[in-house]
Amino acid sequence: MDHQNSIAPEIFRPQTNAVPRKSWRSFLIGRPLSSADAPNETIGKLVGLAVFASDALSSTAYATQEILVILAAAGSAAFGFAFPISMAIVLLITVVVISYEQTIHAYPNGGGAYIVALENLGRIPAQIAGAALLTGYILTVSVSISSGVAQIISAVPILFEWRVEIALALVVLIIIINLRGVRESGIAFAIPAYLFLGVMFLTIGAGLVRVLSGTLGTVTNPPEIYTSYKVVQLVTPFLLLHAFSSGTSALTGIEAIANGVTAFKEPSSRNAGIVLIWMGGILAVLFLGITFLARSTGAVPSEAETVISQITRTIYNGEGPLYLVVVAMTSIILVLAANTAFAGFPRLAAILAQDGFLPRQLTYLGSRLVYSKGIVALGVMAGLLIILFEASVTRLIPLYAIGVFLSFTLSQVGMARRWWKIGHMSSGQDIVTEKSSVLHRDKNFLFKLSINGIGAVCTGIVTLVFGVTNFISGAWIVIVLVPLLVVGFSAIQRHYQGLARQLSLDHYHSLHQVNRYRVIVPISGVHQGSLAGLHFARSISSDVTAVYVSMDPEEAKKIQSKWSVYGDGVRLLVLESPYRLLLEPILEYIEALCKNRQSNEVIMVVVPQFVSRRWWTGVLHNQTAFMLRLGLLSRPGVIIIEVPYQVE
Amino acid sequence: MDHQNSIAPEIFRPQTNAVPRKSWRSFLIGRPLSSADAPNETIGKLVGLAVFASDALSSTAYATQEILVILAAAGSAAFGFAFPISMAIVLLITVVVISYEQTIHAYPNGGGAYIVALENLGRIPAQIAGAALLTGYILTVSVSISSGVAQIISAVPILFEWRVEIALALVVLIIIINLRGVRESGIAFAIPAYLFLGVMFLTIGAGLVRVLSGTLGTVTNPPEIYTSYKVVQLVTPFLLLHAFSSGTSALTGIEAIANGVTAFKEPSSRNAGIVLIWMGGILAVLFLGITFLARSTGAVPSEAETVISQITRTIYNGEGPLYLVVVAMTSIILVLAANTAFAGFPRLAAILAQDGFLPRQLTYLGSRLVYSKGIVALGVMAGLLIILFEASVTRLIPLYAIGVFLSFTLSQVGMARRWWKIGHMSSGQDIVTEKSSVLHRDKNFLFKLSINGIGAVCTGIVTLVFGVTNFISGAWIVIVLVPLLVVGFSAIQRHYQGLARQLSLDHYHSLHQVNRYRVIVPISGVHQGSLAGLHFARSISSDVTAVYVSMDPEEAKKIQSKWSVYGDGVRLLVLESPYRLLLEPILEYIEALCKNRQSNEVIMVVVPQFVSRRWWTGVLHNQTAFMLRLGLLSRPGVIIIEVPYQVE
Repeated sequence: MDHQNSIAPEIFRPQTNAVPRKSWRSFLIGRPLSSADAPNETIGKLVGLAVFASDALSSTAYATQEILVILAAAGSAAFGFAFPISMAIVLLITVVVISYEQTIHAYPNGGGAYIVALENLGRIPAQIAGAALLTGYILTVSVSISSGVAQIISAVPILFEWRVEIALALVVLIIIINLRGVRESGIAFAIPAYLFLGVMFLTIGAGLVRVLSGTLGTVTNPPEIYTSYKVVQLVTPFLLLHAFSSGTSALTGIEAIANGVTAFKEPSSRNAGIVLIWMGGILAVLFLGITFLARSTGAVPSEAETVISQITRTIYNGEGPLYLVVVAMTSIILVLAANTAFAGFPRLAAILAQDGFLPRQLTYLGSRLVYSKGIVALGVMAGLLIILFEASVTRLIPLYAIGVFLSFTLSQVGMARRWWKIGHMSSGQDIVTEKSSVLHRDKNFLFKLSINGIGAVCTGIVTLVFGVTNFISGAWIVIVLVPLLVVGFSAIQRHYQGLARQLSLDHYHSLHQVNRYRVIVPISGVHQGSLAGLHFARSISSDVTAVYVSMDPEEAKKIQSKWSVYGDGVRLLVLESPYRLLLEPILEYIEALCKNRQSNEVIMVVVPQFVSRRWWTGVLHNQTAFMLRLGLLSRPGVIIIEVPYQVE
Repeated sequence: MDHQNSIAPEIFRPQTNAVPRKSWRSFLIGRPLSSADAPNETIGKLVGLAVFASDALSSTAYATQEILVILAAAGSAAFGFAFPISMAIVLLITVVVISYEQTIHAYPNGGGAYIVALENLGRIPAQIAGAALLTGYILTVSVSISSGVAQIISAVPILFEWRVEIALALVVLIIIINLRGVRESGIAFAIPAYLFLGVMFLTIGAGLVRVLSGTLGTVTNPPEIYTSYKVVQLVTPFLLLHAFSSGTSALTGIEAIANGVTAFKEPSSRNAGIVLIWMGGILAVLFLGITFLARSTGAVPSEAETVISQITRTIYNGEGPLYLVVVAMTSIILVLAANTAFAGFPRLAAILAQDGFLPRQLTYLGSRLVYSKGIVALGVMAGLLIILFEASVTRLIPLYAIGVFLSFTLSQVGMARRWWKIGHMSSGQDIVTEKSSVLHRDKNFLFKLSINGIGAVCTGIVTLVFGVTNFISGAWIVIVLVPLLVVGFSAIQRHYQGLARQLSLDHYHSLHQVNRYRVIVPISGVHQGSLAGLHFARSISSDVTAVYVSMDPEEAKKIQSKWSVYGDGVRLLVLESPYRLLLEPILEYIEALCKNRQSNEVIMVVVPQFVSRRWWTGVLHNQTAFMLRLGLLSRPGVIIIEVPYQVE
């Protein structure tokens, strides 16, 4: 062998280029994309807004109502506090958006709260942020699909029986569209998202015009007021805080862009940052506009009719076509909010997997250049939640916001810590961190530190309020789940690190030269299959032993006499098995051989394996070969040789 | 190598004798029994009667009532026909018992209707008989457990919600007791069976004494009469035939002994034959006695109270302790009837499997020398039926008797055919059939032929009546299932026969001498695991090619430079995979090699296989080795070498 020559690696290009075959998969999700297509699979700012903002914008459909539901406990006079509270929430939105905008530029490879926490707070806070975000995404899918289905059901009540099936069908549909690639799913979902924005702006604009012109009346036939408190409350600071924390549901979804920076066209962080600011602006305008109009029209929180519906029919003087469009688009945007999670979860999971906290299959790009396994995993888990909670929004909602706010808090604290570090840097010296983030001196660090500090305190308080007020009704599940996930992350990381250590070549020394092969051929009878195995065994070693497990002395005698004809002089060992066990005698025998093994000796077991073309014939055989393999795999120093014997 | 010496087979007796380990299994079903213990595991006549007669004797609990239910349609005056009809049924019992007694002696290895049909009627009738019997046994378990549970529920109605769970628990209990071995299960179930017989004889005896002494009154507060007809009928021959066929439910269970001859102590066919005649006698006496007393006491068919209960409380002047014992024992014998099926089904399945009609695993004796797999299979299928039919006797009963009577008919026809053959033998010349049955000339062949002929006609008519009257309510399931089973039997047999042909050494010629080995080592990276595989590959051949699938050119370059250090001069082939497929490029490459393969060349693929001690770590890896194995197994001429690499 010519070493010089053979060391130069050949590159084999199969004629077919290993293109996946046409199948139902390519029919469903489209032709496979080559890795070279990756840059074409990113999205621009307009599509990006639709993909990543759906979740946040959909929250305007219920955030105002959530505030009013709490205030209603103190009588309708307390509704006057709704607008000031909304202003405070918009302030919080501003803080969080600025913070994430800075995060996007600081960490251009995405990851949001997880990366910020990892670099600035340490491994455990990062894992907590990751776990909180992942559960948040899963819940986003369950909640938003369930609320979309709830809207469908309020229109067609006969479908109530099938709500779980409808919700699951929607999950499957969104999975398939997302598997087709980020560009295609973005385009598919951009149209309804922009329609929603269009009609909402139109409605709010029309409402403001009518307020200014003094022609806007109040809600006719208002529905019965609903409050989540059972007894009448006074307007206490606690009540206002509760209303504030309920209204912060408007913030859910803001974090998605920071996790999905890599989905954007280059310059990706610039584009993602711009989209984030757009989204923040739109969110603030919609939210304030709706709250203001709710006050003007005297809309009330109710279980029978949403606040949006009351405002809209007042503005448009009844339930005309424009009213119907608004209601329909609101339903659709609720379902689309799930799509944002499908854009965020797989990317975050891939980042976590890259760091060794999740199975590394999550980092592989599927045939359409998306993280297919993450998409499917998200869909499956959200589907399970839907089944478990019977697609009930009321039962799912208490689990929802706490994870998101936990990650907000960690991200704010992390950014604050980062400004602190920057403030204490010696000037003129940039620091590049492990995740290629660059720290460089900034005069305004104290101002930025205080923004993030205030944000951290606010989101932290909201997290606590959420946790306490919803503990019994479901938040405890998340509070239990997040630590469990953190433990899981650590266990997975330990496994990968241990494996890497064991596979490492740092202390590699050449293995012993092997010069003795002991080959064992377990046979079930004397036939073509076992003789094929024997034939192969003899061609690689002269030290071959055939082994037969005997349960019936008569049968053993027959085998022995047949062996003397066909066995070609090879030793046949009969293992008696008085208790009719098949595997155990062979495994015991091999164990005995292993004990007396020389260091230059390798034990090989030839397992003749029947392979049938017809799948159902599997149940007609003992699967001894399969069981033997399983029994032998865990034994060091034993090599398993499978000689497949294809039948029919 | 010394051929003379090595050909003498060694017998290896491991010190531990390959005794199965103590585990939860041995705790549940007892210590394993050695094959040498087999003769101790047979049962005597007394235990045999309890095991095999429970099913038949339990039918006396409802057969009389089944007759009255039909007759009631023509008014209570028609009840007078019940006793004559019972006499006719006892005649039929006599014919069937005589026939089976002859079968047992003619076919001492068991198998009943199946063997009789196989030897005398051909393969298809035999398969039909086998299929009918197997479904009959499964239904026996479902029906008798369900009816036992129904009795429990009528005592404790609060358990109704849990009826399916209770039934399944009873099935599991009977499975476990049967897995403990035929002797243990026999003894466990003999006591309640004999208690049932004892109290029934006592009750009937007491009743007859009171009839003769003229002190037996009539049923006080008789329950409401129930009939299965919706409109009043005249006493037509059809009505009487219907009543007759309903009463033949007394015959179900008679066939069990003929299938289970091998369970008896030697001389097994003599013992089995004696038990069969005992059983027939007891069955006839109980059945006639109950029907007679039903007439004497004026008991009526009802859904509210069984006929047995009415008779018993009349004989004992109220619901005293003896009454309660009779009712309790009747419930228990109904559950025990299931046990008879557990004695019959596994043996019949083993006989069918021996002939290649069912998976051959059914012929293996488990650790307690019973056909464990047949026992578990019966339990699982009966359990599924119980779940499917929600443990409802009413819904299960229409499926029940048709299979049993179909097999009776085939067995009678088969025996008739046998007498016909015997009648046409040349004298003095015995014929030994394939199944070691001996035909020898018999002067009375015409008499015996006519007995079986009449039996065949009667059981045939009953089968037809059953099929027609219950077709819609469930018999169609059996009528569809039996042919499907027959098709299945044939498919299984074809598979085994094809396999035997392919494995046969009849046309065996020595294989080509192999003298070139081409070894392929797919690697996922350069690490201890892949180098261990490489090391082994090099030790068996000098023609080794390492193969790496590249999805990322950067990564491939790293691998190549690492390989130049550790690859020890072995050729490295880089397969580019632009569509990020992992297996397909390797499989395509191997396919290309196979095409150009010389006849003296073997292609070996070394699959380094990670083995982790912790089961859950499986999800953290790609399972490429597993998928590669699957892909390669079906390729002729490729040998798979697994080099396990144990981690942590």
